[in-house]
Amino acid sequence: MILTEKIIKLSKHYKTPFLLFDLKQIKKNYLKLKKNIDGVEICYAMKANDHPKILQYLAKEGSSFEISSLNELRTLLRLKINQSRIICFNPIKSPEFLEAMAIQNIKIMAYDSVDEINKIAKFAPKSEVVLRIIVSNEGSDWPLTKKFGADAKDALEFLLYAKKKGLKPIGLTCHVGSQCLNKDNWVKALHVYNDIWIEAQKRDINLTLLSLGGGIPIQHTKPIPTINEIGQVINQSIRKHFKDKTNSLRITLEPGRGLVGDAAIMTTTVTGKAVRGKEKWIYIDVGILNGLMETIANFTYQLSAESTGKKQIVTIGGPSCDSIDIPFNKISLPKVNIGDRLYILNTGAYTTVYASTFNGFEVPKIYFVNS
Amino acid sequence: MILTEKIIKLSKHYKTPFLLFDLKQIKKNYLKLKKNIDGVEICYAMKANDHPKILQYLAKEGSSFEISSLNELRTLLRLKINQSRIICFNPIKSPEFLEAMAIQNIKIMAYDSVDEINKIAKFAPKSEVVLRIIVSNEGSDWPLTKKFGADAKDALEFLLYAKKKGLKPIGLTCHVGSQCLNKDNWVKALHVYNDIWIEAQKRDINLTLLSLGGGIPIQHTKPIPTINEIGQVINQSIRKHFKDKTNSLRITLEPGRGLVGDAAIMTTTVTGKAVRGKEKWIYIDVGILNGLMETIANFTYQLSAESTGKKQIVTIGGPSCDSIDIPFNKISLPKVNIGDRLYILNTGAYTTVYASTFNGFEVPKIYFVNS
Repeated sequence: MILTEKIIKLSKHYKTPFLLFDLKQIKKNYLKLKKNIDGVEICYAMKANDHPKILQYLAKEGSSFEISSLNELRTLLRLKINQSRIICFNPIKSPEFLEAMAIQNIKIMAYDSVDEINKIAKFAPKSEVVLRIIVSNEGSDWPLTKKFGADAKDALEFLLYAKKKGLKPIGLTCHVGSQCLNKDNWVKALHVYNDIWIEAQKRDINLTLLSLGGGIPIQHTKPIPTINEIGQVINQSIRKHFKDKTNSLRITLEPGRGLVGDAAIMTTTVTGKAVRGKEKWIYIDVGILNGLMETIANFTYQLSAESTGKKQIVTIGGPSCDSIDIPFNKISLPKVNIGDRLYILNTGAYTTVYASTFNGFEVPKIYFVNS
Repeated sequence: MILTEKIIKLSKHYKTPFLLFDLKQIKKNYLKLKKNIDGVEICYAMKANDHPKILQYLAKEGSSFEISSLNELRTLLRLKINQSRIICFNPIKSPEFLEAMAIQNIKIMAYDSVDEINKIAKFAPKSEVVLRIIVSNEGSDWPLTKKFGADAKDALEFLLYAKKKGLKPIGLTCHVGSQCLNKDNWVKALHVYNDIWIEAQKRDINLTLLSLGGGIPIQHTKPIPTINEIGQVINQSIRKHFKDKTNSLRITLEPGRGLVGDAAIMTTTVTGKAVRGKEKWIYIDVGILNGLMETIANFTYQLSAESTGKKQIVTIGGPSCDSIDIPFNKISLPKVNIGDRLYILNTGAYTTVYASTFNGFEVPKIYFVNS
């Protein structure tokens, strides 16, 4: 989303901090993914931003949804989103959540452990399960840890165990890492999928759901592969490995950031300034604890200032008294004054959803253009 | 707060995750600090936990309050806490907040930069200002960064500038680091204070407010100095340096964790298990994003299991799909099953206040015993 004069003018109406979303940008992202990945079904990972307007808008466009919890399910049901468009790829689910999905006839869900299969068999016995396997996360800005995923070498065993427990193993999922800058991760993942697919077939398990996971990158400060480039390697790999299996194939993608990340701009106000030693500091009304959590691990957003003053190196502190609350470290910015506004670009995903009101500072409100 | 049979029994009534507070423990902490630090006025740093019951209880005990934001001020005013018991030690305040404090006749506030003095002079010109200076943070579990504080060598200049701008410089504050395990930090701070005090006196600035800051530690997994030991070194230092100034001295302490940290136990339920490679994992319904944020920087809470099974090394994942959401890394715990409860001790401070509902997982509710 580009910071235009129109956006700046519109922003003046609101008290900072706030997020201004452009719903048309979400549509553009949605259509671009649909266009570039052959036959893909988009399942929005609603954890990225669960504002009802965004969910409703995506539902209207035809999107499906990926959920992780009972409250996410409740939110979608409240919005009258059809259960057939809901899948759950959280590999660890509470019994309560499983029961609720069973009641709603939501069947497609992920797993990656024996204990989870036992739990699903007990609380949602008609489920169709998707095995999450570990794939390469090389070159992702936010690589995943060992928290989730089964080793590919154990995949067949897991698929057979699910079948043995009366569940229907229907496919595979993975995660190439959030904000994935390396398109080869998808190529590698599909290669691994193919091996498992063939092994499963030999044991009479016919997999049909091929989930590409999340990780679709958006433009921040580093160069990124285009959706077209990512689509090309994915399409090629699917044609190569799944050519004779494509009739029954259901291909899903679960983007969060890739749909909403670049569809919003956060506006903040400079509330203070200081010179500490030789370092220049400014302080703003949004920080790590009320909206910019991702900056904690060197994730850097692009910043724009209204001022056109001489550029200088500044560190930016958030509003709270917490010493970890330093969203930007030694960045280049035009000289600004207290009261000036700053615009933090591409902040639609993983911002307000991580935010708390720690120290009494408010979570950015969400407003829309083109809604 | 000790996990007794009574507490476990009482906990059964509530759905996890939740915090169970013992108000008597808060009183005990309050009285212990009052007893061990001669003439101290306790100003609760409400950011640690701003539940109205806790604030009201402390007000009833006679506590003052340290605030950082307009919403914290509003909360205290709603609770009818007298303005004379409110101070603000956030060194960077928004103009809006300064104006609100001026209207409420809340005068005592911190600063640490020239820009802040200019701002205070403009928006709250009758303020009595307290200079925050940098002191040693050696041996604190949560050392502060360069985000706040003036160099002691520049202190006089800052005091004179405040006076020049029509404000009344009345004292000094500092922060020895959160969960400070090294009592000498207070000794060093008071030594630095004394030098500044004398210099200020020579220039006709009579300082009277001596703020000891926060940092009072509570028992987690490492040995800590007792309040008695901390009190002794503080009392000795104050007697040594401020003997002939004690008549007009107002000594404040701004504890957050030190008052409420060990007054609560968090109860959580095991929702999943997995073996990943050779590592055992369990998953619980509270994690970094909905209550255990402090574990992100190796801050470790003590954990108790109901189970008395054989101990094993496990890593514990939080409920969200976020890969950073791993509150405990390779800790020793009795073997547990899905559905078992775990008790996370001394979780009264900096837990629920940092929590978001990311991914649909709930912020722990707060309940009370002895209220």
